[in-house]
Amino acid sequence: MRRTGVWLLGAHGNVATTAMVGARAIAAEEVGTGGLVTAQDPCHRLDLPPIEGFVFGGHDVSATTVSSTARMLSERATIPPEIVKAVDEDLERIEERIETGTAINCGRAIEDRVERAFSERNVSDTVARLREEYRAFVTEQNVDRLVVVNVSSTEPPLSDPGRYDTVSSVERAVADDDRDLPASSLYAYAALLDGYPYINFTPSTGASLGGLKALARRKNVPHMGRDGKTGETLLKSALAPMFARRNLRVRSWEGHNILGNADGRVLEDEANEAGKLASKSGVLDGILDEEFHNRVRIDYTPPLGDWKTAWDDIRFSGFLDTPMKMQFTWEGSDSILAAPLVLDLIRLIVHADEHGEGGLQPQLASFFKSPLGVDEHDLSRQFGMLTNYVNRYEGIDD
Amino acid sequence: MRRTGVWLLGAHGNVATTAMVGARAIAAEEVGTGGLVTAQDPCHRLDLPPIEGFVFGGHDVSATTVSSTARMLSERATIPPEIVKAVDEDLERIEERIETGTAINCGRAIEDRVERAFSERNVSDTVARLREEYRAFVTEQNVDRLVVVNVSSTEPPLSDPGRYDTVSSVERAVADDDRDLPASSLYAYAALLDGYPYINFTPSTGASLGGLKALARRKNVPHMGRDGKTGETLLKSALAPMFARRNLRVRSWEGHNILGNADGRVLEDEANEAGKLASKSGVLDGILDEEFHNRVRIDYTPPLGDWKTAWDDIRFSGFLDTPMKMQFTWEGSDSILAAPLVLDLIRLIVHADEHGEGGLQPQLASFFKSPLGVDEHDLSRQFGMLTNYVNRYEGIDD
Amino acid sequence: MRRTGVWLLGAHGNVATTAMVGARAIAAEEVGTGGLVTAQDPCHRLDLPPIEGFVFGGHDVSATTVSSTARMLSERATIPPEIVKAVDEDLERIEERIETGTAINCGRAIEDRVERAFSERNVSDTVARLREEYRAFVTEQNVDRLVVVNVSSTEPPLSDPGRYDTVSSVERAVADDDRDLPASSLYAYAALLDGYPYINFTPSTGASLGGLKALARRKNVPHMGRDGKTGETLLKSALAPMFARRNLRVRSWEGHNILGNADGRVLEDEANEAGKLASKSGVLDGILDEEFHNRVRIDYTPPLGDWKTAWDDIRFSGFLDTPMKMQFTWEGSDSILAAPLVLDLIRLIVHADEHGEGGLQPQLASFFKSPLGVDEHDLSRQFGMLTNYVNRYEGIDD
Amino acid sequence: MRRTGVWLLGAHGNVATTAMVGARAIAAEEVGTGGLVTAQDPCHRLDLPPIEGFVFGGHDVSATTVSSTARMLSERATIPPEIVKAVDEDLERIEERIETGTAINCGRAIEDRVERAFSERNVSDTVARLREEYRAFVTEQNVDRLVVVNVSSTEPPLSDPGRYDTVSSVERAVADDDRDLPASSLYAYAALLDGYPYINFTPSTGASLGGLKALARRKNVPHMGRDGKTGETLLKSALAPMFARRNLRVRSWEGHNILGNADGRVLEDEANEAGKLASKSGVLDGILDEEFHNRVRIDYTPPLGDWKTAWDDIRFSGFLDTPMKMQFTWEGSDSILAAPLVLDLIRLIVHADEHGEGGLQPQLASFFKSPLGVDEHDLSRQFGMLTNYVNRYEGIDD
Ligand SMILES: NC(=O)c1ccc[n+]([C@@H]2O[C@H](COP(=O)([O-])OP(=O)(O)OC[C@H]3O[C@@H](n4cnc5c(N)ncnc54)[C@H](O)[C@@H]3O)[C@@H](O)[C@H]2O)c1
Ligand SMILES: NC(=O)c1ccc[n+]([C@@H]2O[C@H](COP(=O)([O-])OP(=O)(O)OC[C@H]3O[C@@H](n4cnc5c(N)ncnc54)[C@H](O)[C@@H]3O)[C@@H](O)[C@H]2O)c1
Ligand SMILES: NC(=O)c1ccc[n+]([C@@H]2O[C@H](COP(=O)([O-])OP(=O)(O)OC[C@H]3O[C@@H](n4cnc5c(N)ncnc54)[C@H](O)[C@@H]3O)[C@@H](O)[C@H]2O)c1
Ligand SMILES: NC(=O)c1ccc[n+]([C@@H]2O[C@H](COP(=O)([O-])OP(=O)(O)OC[C@H]3O[C@@H](n4cnc5c(N)ncnc54)[C@H](O)[C@@H]3O)[C@@H](O)[C@H]2O)c1
Ligand code: NA
Ligand code: NA
Repeated sequence: MRRTGVWLLGAHGNVATTAMVGARAIAAEEVGTGGLVTAQDPCHRLDLPPIEGFVFGGHDVSATTVSSTARMLSERATIPPEIVKAVDEDLERIEERIETGTAINCGRAIEDRVERAFSERNVSDTVARLREEYRAFVTEQNVDRLVVVNVSSTEPPLSDPGRYDTVSSVERAVADDDRDLPASSLYAYAALLDGYPYINFTPSTGASLGGLKALARRKNVPHMGRDGKTGETLLKSALAPMFARRNLRVRSWEGHNILGNADGRVLEDEANEAGKLASKSGVLDGILDEEFHNRVRIDYTPPLGDWKTAWDDIRFSGFLDTPMKMQFTWEGSDSILAAPLVLDLIRLIVHADEHGEGGLQPQLASFFKSPLGVDEHDLSRQFGMLTNYVNRYEGIDD
Repeated sequence: MRRTGVWLLGAHGNVATTAMVGARAIAAEEVGTGGLVTAQDPCHRLDLPPIEGFVFGGHDVSATTVSSTARMLSERATIPPEIVKAVDEDLERIEERIETGTAINCGRAIEDRVERAFSERNVSDTVARLREEYRAFVTEQNVDRLVVVNVSSTEPPLSDPGRYDTVSSVERAVADDDRDLPASSLYAYAALLDGYPYINFTPSTGASLGGLKALARRKNVPHMGRDGKTGETLLKSALAPMFARRNLRVRSWEGHNILGNADGRVLEDEANEAGKLASKSGVLDGILDEEFHNRVRIDYTPPLGDWKTAWDDIRFSGFLDTPMKMQFTWEGSDSILAAPLVLDLIRLIVHADEHGEGGLQPQLASFFKSPLGVDEHDLSRQFGMLTNYVNRYEGIDD
Repeated sequence: MRRTGVWLLGAHGNVATTAMVGARAIAAEEVGTGGLVTAQDPCHRLDLPPIEGFVFGGHDVSATTVSSTARMLSERATIPPEIVKAVDEDLERIEERIETGTAINCGRAIEDRVERAFSERNVSDTVARLREEYRAFVTEQNVDRLVVVNVSSTEPPLSDPGRYDTVSSVERAVADDDRDLPASSLYAYAALLDGYPYINFTPSTGASLGGLKALARRKNVPHMGRDGKTGETLLKSALAPMFARRNLRVRSWEGHNILGNADGRVLEDEANEAGKLASKSGVLDGILDEEFHNRVRIDYTPPLGDWKTAWDDIRFSGFLDTPMKMQFTWEGSDSILAAPLVLDLIRLIVHADEHGEGGLQPQLASFFKSPLGVDEHDLSRQFGMLTNYVNRYEGIDD
Repeated sequence: MRRTGVWLLGAHGNVATTAMVGARAIAAEEVGTGGLVTAQDPCHRLDLPPIEGFVFGGHDVSATTVSSTARMLSERATIPPEIVKAVDEDLERIEERIETGTAINCGRAIEDRVERAFSERNVSDTVARLREEYRAFVTEQNVDRLVVVNVSSTEPPLSDPGRYDTVSSVERAVADDDRDLPASSLYAYAALLDGYPYINFTPSTGASLGGLKALARRKNVPHMGRDGKTGETLLKSALAPMFARRNLRVRSWEGHNILGNADGRVLEDEANEAGKLASKSGVLDGILDEEFHNRVRIDYTPPLGDWKTAWDDIRFSGFLDTPMKMQFTWEGSDSILAAPLVLDLIRLIVHADEHGEGGLQPQLASFFKSPLGVDEHDLSRQFGMLTNYVNRYEGIDD
């Protein structure tokens, strides 16, 4: 069986934990494959690396453990307790492979919560250490391939990212100990340098800098991002095309999200919230042509735990300019929605890597709120892109 | 300017009236083209007959007038009063061309409300009279083409429609004075016999009989149906694919509709409701593979007038089988949603007719809850079929 | 400590089980007193029998056990699993005191599901057997007092209840083996005859017959009913007075309930549903003076389990007759809402009994959808009646 | 017929205009008395001044007119156009009695929008001018009594209001030209000095200063405030007691309001919003004992016009600490909800004045979000206070 190394940045977090618990539970045949896009048509026609072969490791800056995050999630009606129990030994083994990460330039909200973090003398040494840790994992675990996935807390947006538009500008910044480069980009840089595919499931900067995209092209490493499309935004990308194609003009779209987990606590900080809001509201602007009132709010409401309620209010007008409206509530567990996508993305980016597809991976657009390099936000058309990719490999994979 | 004859079955009704008011208001430049699919890309690339050239006539079995339906709708916040005023003279002129229809086999709920209806000695004479009335309109109004559109009240479903599976079986039924054939099918038969394109915007039988579909093919007349897809069902066809493609398994989808207009009153009758419920719930079954609890309710609530509120409750499970849910309310005016589609369909079926496309018109699937001859219920893919049709005519229409 | 015997009709059901689990968990200090009206002001000022002193027994017609109902509820996110575990031994002991009941005249939906039921030769023997079973429990368990509580499945309404308007008419019916008397009334009759207070938490007939109410007065036994007011109806009784007192005229109030437990399955049967609908819609009619469209629907949706979602749509008009609206969804566990009320009612009816209050107990009106003998449906005023009762005993109880 | 002078501060605004249009339409018997609390039991048992006898005047700082505000409201589906037409002449006559007001210390959001405002040399002259204008109106219109009502835009809260705790401190501030006193308090001061009853329908400071309350007591002038209780907060005060009395512990109550009128535009300014948020969230704190997450948001969404949608999400726990929830949406026209209360308050405060009741008027608590001097926030109990007041006058008024 192919062994796929999976390196999770933010390995103690909810998304990472749920992904690992789920992967091990699937491997143990404790649970089915609900929620996995790759478990069904069209993707299951590809020859994808098996989830049973995933070997997990990662970085985090908290002092907790995967096991205790899993238990916490099971108390909050997210993961069934018996599943946590069934995989608990696996989680203990994984814990040994989780290293202390770097929290450089992650914004106050995160920095205030860091419980452990390494700090090398300079940025250059930081990158060297990350590379060394990736490499050690690959060797020790004897994996065929390593994928680095960012599921750590959302950083504030980077100001003036244009200054890192070329490979050499990034190289210079690292050499000159430029402290503006955020942790997410250092993790990405270290991965790409050694040819490890990289996925950015968060709104953080990661590999979205011009210089890192160029590096990925040069090294022919596949990568993709940003910000997993799980709940309210997923719905927007399914619904907005209906209004657009029926010539029903949206006048206002108010989205109000309340959530109670650690992600919500970090997003309470306005700086960290900014990136999330941008990617959440960008989807509508990408689908609807008209001018309209577009607002998204994210509020932290502790009693909700890992569950998020999104309430959207949409006003539109149709024939004879008559005003009409629709409203929806979406009540889902963010981690449960996100985790299978993380597993899907790993399988699909490994496929791309195995077939020599480097740089951005537009066929993965449907997974992201802000798909890098893709203007299409219509969910159905994004799925069409994935189907086309699969069709391209028809007859090749067998 | 091309003159298109538009013959509305149910011409005094809400949908018919709103379509005529809107068409005349657009002609008078009193209002824009919001809600019209044909007013924008891709359809506007086709050479379609202008709405200004539409000449209206029709059948009804009520003693009211288009003007008074329009006024009633403007009192209920559907059509702005100033628009009704602006087109009122046009409506009076149209009234002169509205004939008394036949109410044969339309179910108790309709029959109890018929205020005027013709009854010929037998079915054969009924068909002859309808043909004569269509023909007279074409001659007197000097139109280039006639389209017959069914927007009359929903009939109960026909039992054992298989007995009318061939052209000759229909011909024999008419000759033998078979009283089981419903009005909607007689109107359709009369239209197809003389080559008039036919649209069935209702769940009634119309031209969906095997024998009438064969007749349309034989005569190469374009026709399409059934049941305009306007509100809750439109949403279902936009949303359900999202669940399907993300492998989120729907466990139950409860739809509860309340509405207060004449259509709602007719649908209170269980016989007449049956066809509507079938086409409303069929959409989900056509998109979702899994077994799930699928119920639609339609309740008559007079204070709502022409406004309908649909409330849908959707339970689904995802990764680790965790149950989640979404709920929506949709608040629209049924007539405002339906009327522009009627105008779109007329324009598009004229286009088909002008280009020699006979029989069913699958490119129009996105307009219908139960698109005849089309299994695809995914709204986005249905729009794709329309785009493909338009693309086929690229370079031909100019 | 005072020992209070609690005899539950429908002891294997969800409400009964949750009440027993909760009572034992409170006794074991495993959980607090949330949801108990008697745990706080004003009722806690009364000298009420302690929940720790409740001794449970009962009748049922199913072959399941309290333990297995409890486990089923804990799997459906109603009762926390650790609580079920903590009281499981108590439940086993209770099981020994649960007798086979009678299912006479309970309607098809229940009769089809009966797994065991006793049938004596005639009604008279049936009553004798019930009396014997109550008495045996009192003696064996050495309780100070016995309260009989109906929490069994809803029966269809009794036709022409006026024929049982006097004590002698009931006595004659029993003597003449009148098979129209439903089980709920036989259970109640047997209780009242021997002076055991009786509570009817269901919409079934129970002691609401004129003859049984007269018997209770004659014997000075306290009793009260019908139909516990837990969710949607509770809300109605809190909200409708706001509309009434602000002169906001309700035009329509649509209530749509979906639920997935055994109660929902029984209510799917139209006969059994009738009583429930009557008590649910009666509340609004009792508060609002105006004519309005008042509909309640109850639909069975298995994926919801013991959870019920009520969706209400309220249209009203105010100043200048402008139409406005509100909508709500209520998502609660029916058993969790009902169980504490059952415990409250037992404590309060024991108090009444101890103080010589016989017949109907209007101070308990706030607990019921159709409070027997009380016209007041305004929740706040009903609470006022309870407060007045408590105030009357101020200084007496100590 | 008794002539009641009504002086509206903010006379060009939506609430003022709707109140005047409604009063004149009632006088002309164009419309009924829906929405008026005083039109029904218990208040109609009092001998209240007739609405037909209301004579309107007021202050504003905008350059618009009552007529044009009325027309604007009729275009936005608030006031029916035919009603505006029926009273239009009356509105023109009222316009002549609307004076230019003062905008001193009303916060940036208002000051930026002032189109006309008077500014006397100092505060003392300002007060003198206001008194002169009130007096002139009383004389010219020959009214029996004058009531001053604040329905102008919300001011920011006053910092350290304790410094104006005595009559002399206020007198000194006026004499010393203290520019911190906001317009609302100057208008109130001028009214109370000459014995005119005063109502503060807004969250602004008005007569809530200790010194002004003392002045009202000394002069025996009735007054009451603050902030009319119309929509979401009204609902909270009806619903929260249900949770409290059933021992259902509220964990979080999120209220999200979107509205599109001028009031919403002013409240977009955080300073002006502060007072509103305080009075909106205070209601829950006044009813619920437990600690809970309590947030209110008000967002400006222009497409909604005068219509407001409140969406509330309430999480609570009950028996066995099981978490449950309810959500509601409230869709009303703020002006339509507020205007009848303004008319009610005028009638009721005139009654108080006629019967020598001076100072704060607790019987009016049900009309306000923050009823001055009243701790009771339970709507039903507040209505009880009004009923008690009416009962006190039983037999006196005839
Ligand atoms: N759950 C979803 O639906 C969803 C959807 C889209 C995106 N996301 C994004 O995924 C990310 C993770 O979400 P979550 O709910 O798991 O959050 P979480 O707070 O539970 O987990 C984040 C983890 O990252 C760790 N971390 C923070 N900074 C780090 C650093 N510099 N290096 C290493 N570890 C670091 C934290 O200690 C924590 O353990 C967030 O950015 C979130 O916005 C989540
Ligand atoms: N409005 C929508 O959103 C929508 C969507 C899909 C389908 N439809 C269907 O369109 C149809 C019309 O809806 P509506 O709201 O205008 O209803 P309506 O009741 O206002 O109008 C129906 C008209 O048909 C007339 N009629 C009835 N039987 C007839 C007959 N045999 N011959 C001629 N006229 C007849 C009636 O007198 C009435 O004037 C209905 O079948 C409805 O189900 C409407
Ligand atoms: N849960 C609530 O919120 C609520 C509120 C008001 C009223 N109620 C009423 O309480 C009753 C119980 O509800 P539930 O959810 O526990 O239902 P359930 O179906 O879980 O339990 C009912 C029990 O009664 C038993 N039973 C049926 N007929 C019987 C008979 N003749 N003698 C003895 N036992 C019999 C059944 O076997 C079953 O065990 C129902 O009538 C319901 O309508 C419930
Ligand atoms: N409508 C409701 O449901 C409701 C409920 C409670 C309270 N209120 C309060 O009532 C007030 C009025 O609401 P609205 O919707 O009519 O607002 P609006 O903006 O339509 O009207 C306010 C008017 O006050 C005028 N104004 C502002 N400052 C003034 C000053 N210093 N002197 C004189 N006039 C001044 C403005 O020019 C405007 O004409 C607001 O404070 C609002 O918060 C309204
Ligand atoms: Na918000
Ligand atoms: Na229903």
